[in-house]
Amino acid sequence: MQRLVIACSQRQNQQINLTEEQLHYLKRVLRLKQGDSFIALDGKGQAWIAQLADDTAVIVQPLEQTDRELTVQVTLIAALPKGNSFDEIVRCCTQLGVTQIIPAISDRTLLKPSTNKLQRWRRIATEAAEQSERQIVPAIAKPASFVSAITQHSPQKYICVARGNAPHLLHCLRHKQATSNNQQQIIIATGSEGGWTTTEIEQATLAGFQSVSLGKRILRAATAPIVALSLIAGVDEEFS
Amino acid sequence: MQRLVIACSQRQNQQINLTEEQLHYLKRVLRLKQGDSFIALDGKGQAWIAQLADDTAVIVQPLEQTDRELTVQVTLIAALPKGNSFDEIVRCCTQLGVTQIIPAISDRTLLKPSTNKLQRWRRIATEAAEQSERQIVPAIAKPASFVSAITQHSPQKYICVARGNAPHLLHCLRHKQATSNNQQQIIIATGSEGGWTTTEIEQATLAGFQSVSLGKRILRAATAPIVALSLIAGVDEEFS
Repeated sequence: MQRLVIACSQRQNQQINLTEEQLHYLKRVLRLKQGDSFIALDGKGQAWIAQLADDTAVIVQPLEQTDRELTVQVTLIAALPKGNSFDEIVRCCTQLGVTQIIPAISDRTLLKPSTNKLQRWRRIATEAAEQSERQIVPAIAKPASFVSAITQHSPQKYICVARGNAPHLLHCLRHKQATSNNQQQIIIATGSEGGWTTTEIEQATLAGFQSVSLGKRILRAATAPIVALSLIAGVDEEFS
Repeated sequence: MQRLVIACSQRQNQQINLTEEQLHYLKRVLRLKQGDSFIALDGKGQAWIAQLADDTAVIVQPLEQTDRELTVQVTLIAALPKGNSFDEIVRCCTQLGVTQIIPAISDRTLLKPSTNKLQRWRRIATEAAEQSERQIVPAIAKPASFVSAITQHSPQKYICVARGNAPHLLHCLRHKQATSNNQQQIIIATGSEGGWTTTEIEQATLAGFQSVSLGKRILRAATAPIVALSLIAGVDEEFS
């Protein structure tokens, strides 16, 4: 059944007040007719079977969903790459279970993102969450400076670096898993084209970040976050 | 220093006969001048420092390269997805160390690829190998039917499936690593939109493929190969 994320404020008791855009999507794109059912989600864990009425929808019953979320909360701090690559980062990392993405403005960031971009990334996250059948829509924060982004707290904080002798992220995740029962939150930072400056790596280290490698090859800025999330999700779900 | 992959046939003793396209790239895109140096690679493991002459290049000396290759040979059988998504699969999987990619025509493949597409994918693989500083340019095979693609031999063959109870790929890789000394080759197959048909999974099982999961969420056809390669490369390089 088709899935649609609604804002909490759109639900009033058993009725869902649909936006123009949602009505267009349900009626024109999905070609649903009055009385047809779909899955409405609040993007925070709740879901319902709903039926399309005229310009609204009516909740028929709550829906017990298959749990598709990671057990660990993952915050991705991704330095903004050139062009539209951030779209792909948001889309893929949402499919991989990320909880929050912070677009970071690093020393080597060239892009100055507009407010439209933020709206676009949030729409992509919502669509990717619907498509990958997640219960949770990841939060996309406003772009922040690298220095303010790394003030986030977590017992596990990693910064991905190329060309060094840093240990592999997979090795670090597994070591942490074996030595700690507290796997609740991970923060991971990936750079833009050209990587981090030495100053940025020093700042991150001071803020408690451990430098890690994603392998021996030089990854593009848009590929690194997807590789990092693949490994984090893999370790979280290996035995589930 | 900038990197350029040349065909073996372009090298005659100490001279490299450059193509029109390569000359354009070196002179116009990279803005190299006569006498400037670059790294020439044969895409099969050899590399040299070369100097741009007029319409050729001269080999100055062999180059000892940092080894950026996986120890395991990885063949990806990827069912062709819609649109241009295969470009991204080739680009990212090359960055992640794949040895060979076989574009497969599965029951749910809609795309009928032209010869131009194959040339395009091979160019993308070459560029991605240069950029990620690999020694080896992965081979992109001609598109093949799923049935003929799965006749490839290897001691480790996996087919990625969604929505089942298959064990996680990471779990299987690690189990194999712990129980076998023979980690020389892996074949991994990923589906197109809508996944594999039941018949295809049965055919693969008969051919010795083990069904594996890439996690609990529903991944797009273009994301699955990148996740699979991230895990294979991660396990290969975890302790390197």
